[in-house]
Amino acid sequence: MKITGEALIGASSVRGSGDSFRAFAPATGEDLQPEFHTTGGAEISRAAALAQAAFDSYRETGLDDRARFLETIAQQIVELGDELIVRAMAESGLPRARLEGERGRTVGQLQLFAGLLREGSWLDARLDTALPERAIPRPSIRMRMIALGPVAVFGASNFPLAFSVAGGDTASALAAGCPVIAKAHPAHPGTSELVGRAIQKAVSLCQLPGGVFSLLTGTGNALGADLVRHPAVQAVGFTGSRQGGLALMAIAAARPQPIPVYAEMSSINPVFLLPQALASRGDAIAAGFAASLTLGVGQFCTNPGLVLGLKGKDFDRFAEQAAQALAAAQPGTMLTPGIQAAYQRGVQELAGNEKVKTLSQGSAAAGTCQGVPALFITQAKDFLADHALSNEVFGPASLLVSCDHVAEMLLVTEKLEGQLTATLQMDDADTETARGLLPVLERKVGRILVNGFPTGVEVSTAMVHGGPFPATSDSRSTSVGTAAIQRFLRPVSYQNMPQALLPEALRDGNPLQIWRRKDGQLGKE
Amino acid sequence: MKITGEALIGASSVRGSGDSFRAFAPATGEDLQPEFHTTGGAEISRAAALAQAAFDSYRETGLDDRARFLETIAQQIVELGDELIVRAMAESGLPRARLEGERGRTVGQLQLFAGLLREGSWLDARLDTALPERAIPRPSIRMRMIALGPVAVFGASNFPLAFSVAGGDTASALAAGCPVIAKAHPAHPGTSELVGRAIQKAVSLCQLPGGVFSLLTGTGNALGADLVRHPAVQAVGFTGSRQGGLALMAIAAARPQPIPVYAEMSSINPVFLLPQALASRGDAIAAGFAASLTLGVGQFCTNPGLVLGLKGKDFDRFAEQAAQALAAAQPGTMLTPGIQAAYQRGVQELAGNEKVKTLSQGSAAAGTCQGVPALFITQAKDFLADHALSNEVFGPASLLVSCDHVAEMLLVTEKLEGQLTATLQMDDADTETARGLLPVLERKVGRILVNGFPTGVEVSTAMVHGGPFPATSDSRSTSVGTAAIQRFLRPVSYQNMPQALLPEALRDGNPLQIWRRKDGQLGKE
Repeated sequence: MKITGEALIGASSVRGSGDSFRAFAPATGEDLQPEFHTTGGAEISRAAALAQAAFDSYRETGLDDRARFLETIAQQIVELGDELIVRAMAESGLPRARLEGERGRTVGQLQLFAGLLREGSWLDARLDTALPERAIPRPSIRMRMIALGPVAVFGASNFPLAFSVAGGDTASALAAGCPVIAKAHPAHPGTSELVGRAIQKAVSLCQLPGGVFSLLTGTGNALGADLVRHPAVQAVGFTGSRQGGLALMAIAAARPQPIPVYAEMSSINPVFLLPQALASRGDAIAAGFAASLTLGVGQFCTNPGLVLGLKGKDFDRFAEQAAQALAAAQPGTMLTPGIQAAYQRGVQELAGNEKVKTLSQGSAAAGTCQGVPALFITQAKDFLADHALSNEVFGPASLLVSCDHVAEMLLVTEKLEGQLTATLQMDDADTETARGLLPVLERKVGRILVNGFPTGVEVSTAMVHGGPFPATSDSRSTSVGTAAIQRFLRPVSYQNMPQALLPEALRDGNPLQIWRRKDGQLGKE
Repeated sequence: MKITGEALIGASSVRGSGDSFRAFAPATGEDLQPEFHTTGGAEISRAAALAQAAFDSYRETGLDDRARFLETIAQQIVELGDELIVRAMAESGLPRARLEGERGRTVGQLQLFAGLLREGSWLDARLDTALPERAIPRPSIRMRMIALGPVAVFGASNFPLAFSVAGGDTASALAAGCPVIAKAHPAHPGTSELVGRAIQKAVSLCQLPGGVFSLLTGTGNALGADLVRHPAVQAVGFTGSRQGGLALMAIAAARPQPIPVYAEMSSINPVFLLPQALASRGDAIAAGFAASLTLGVGQFCTNPGLVLGLKGKDFDRFAEQAAQALAAAQPGTMLTPGIQAAYQRGVQELAGNEKVKTLSQGSAAAGTCQGVPALFITQAKDFLADHALSNEVFGPASLLVSCDHVAEMLLVTEKLEGQLTATLQMDDADTETARGLLPVLERKVGRILVNGFPTGVEVSTAMVHGGPFPATSDSRSTSVGTAAIQRFLRPVSYQNMPQALLPEALRDGNPLQIWRRKDGQLGKE
């Protein structure tokens, strides 16, 4: 499929009238063809009007029809073939195996949502039967979830497929019945166009209104800000920097009609090395930690950027082993020059902090955009005294924090900001220590792992990729896994509505054969 | 029980150090004993610290223990006996029967949430089993909902029991596992203290930490603003004016950590008179409408403040009949002088609008705080041209809008702001007209009624008392009914967590015997 550099507005392709830009290949330092153009108010208005026009019919498509639409998108992405992988490799610097895996994840999550749609319990159908004989008669009341409206989705830089144009936010929004207006990340516009055209083709094959999907191109912040300001947009999905997420939250809150923003922003994902585990298998933990930290050149939201241990020889040995492993690790190509520069700044700030000791920090490699692993250590009391030490450094850098005792570890934990994950490395003999940490961790994070590492986020039913602010803007949901559908839904109830007008999900006899809650009891009557 | 005028901070009673104030009896114009005092930063800090200290243990109370706590609150409210009713009558001007009914509703909803707690599916327990043989092994991932944290609840003026200190927000927050810091509405501080002491006693009887509940007293906006700003507060429940709700939303969004605000703010609850229904039973609809409009002197969030009909003799007759019924209705005592003054202003603005014709507007009665029903009519094109005509007038006033045809009715509907409810008065022959309106109504409101009136909100499983902004700040939830528990919850997932550390809801063998979702399938295995 030819990459034309156009934006996709419903069923049509248009060239933006703003500044031109090209993708940049971080591995070679070259600009890539073709030219793209920044879109603006005219394209936003058209995409929004089409989305709004498509909304009422799209949200009422049958469960199976909508499931087949998601499956068709998945199929169209697969049919892009190797061209998609080659372009994504060029634009992101990520290796083939990683991108092939990410394509599988992207396709798999569309299929997972298709299954969820057919199962139907996400509709949260509820029926309270009429009680005409009651002193004050009770009417018949039925409830279901309906879609919020058109959703603006911002592609993330670090997952050009799985968190981008057809990523988790798009999959869950389309599953919920919301048209999507995606903003392509300017770091991978060609990958975005290819995937966008796959969705556009699926819309056409499934004979849906064109406004179900649009893809806007552009650089700079104005496009995203104007998109979030558009009155037709009813929710926002974003994965990116804290600064970007906070800006979108402020814009959304200042609209005449404020709207929900689901921004996944920043996390340092603390790892707790509990004493017995460290004593019994510290070397293996160090190796696993170094592998997790350097995976994908550390460019994961769940990268383990903070490690807490108890002062002593076991923690010293862990630090030494981890530092050696990191010193031996190969530098890798980072996604963009901007990300690489920010990483370098973050590493230099840590290295220059007089309370921080550098354990490993290879010299910057010669190639373009290289990220070199770095490891630092500080004392808990210094960590507590300097908030800057808890800033995320996006890339393969981590800070060890040496605690005098478990109480101090707990204190550090209590002072942490909200995080996506926390990891406990523990043996059975650490159970009571872990039990003491758990209530604090439950308040601080969205996912608690035992004896694993936080990188690698399963797309499943029970996954929570979310967490308290500032890990995300809204701790009440997840951006990965089937529970993500809920963020784009709202309940509506129907009182004494005739059968002919009730949505199918709520009609007598349960024609969709879905789980429903009748007078409070779950069943499939 | 003696009303002392104190605030309740956890298990203790304290007198605020701010301005003193007394309750006002709107029916007699007299101030009531005793004196209350405005609380401030010191009391907020203490209540918040206690709430935070109580949170981790309270949110992990067993389902049955927490259910019994809610039942104990209900019982303690009943045991306040007639003193509660007498005081609420004096402070609100509402009649005995209404307040006795409201007490029943308050007690009933606490009991309903107790039942919900025991049933357990609100925990949304999910278990994805490990797949160790998969190419990339899948870990065991389990998810449940946990409480958000301490919740600030603002009592509403118009339901001194059911939407106040032990009202829906408090019941759902306590059910979710959130400690509550309630701000008493200054219009009924004595009622608030009595109910607050009933909760305080239930906390003690159930041997829960005192910080589970506090009650702050005061006038002015600073107390509420400072409460919402307090870092320990994690969510806000509010029912009141649009101005008040918007102010709290802005404060919550501007916090270093923004928090969810559930504000139920304003609604004019359009009623659609479809032509066949109007032709066949217009007089009965007019009588029902007048009764709904004047119920409780029109002081309901779901008061039918807007009626849309098609120009013609049937609508003329409806207008005439409704006007006659309203002219014959008795004026009633409104809740506060401020509400009465705002109502008078709203009525005068409508009466003075040159595009509006007054159909009924009795002269203001002699008594204090009297609200006199009023009815107006305007043309659809004038309604569309003047946004002020869609402002809520809180009280027994309504505006009829005469539409030239169904398309114009649809246009007016499309231009409406978000509402709590919409009502269709329809006969079978109106079905296709209703079908055309439904998609728009689903986008605009939280509850759609057929052949009823919107006043009277059932507390049940399927009720949605919510709706798009500005009816509420957050259309994703309801403030009435069991689904309200969800607003105070967030998901947490547990990866490879040993049985000994897993919360009971997620342990092997389903010890709580609740509905769980295992690998996507609902069941009770």
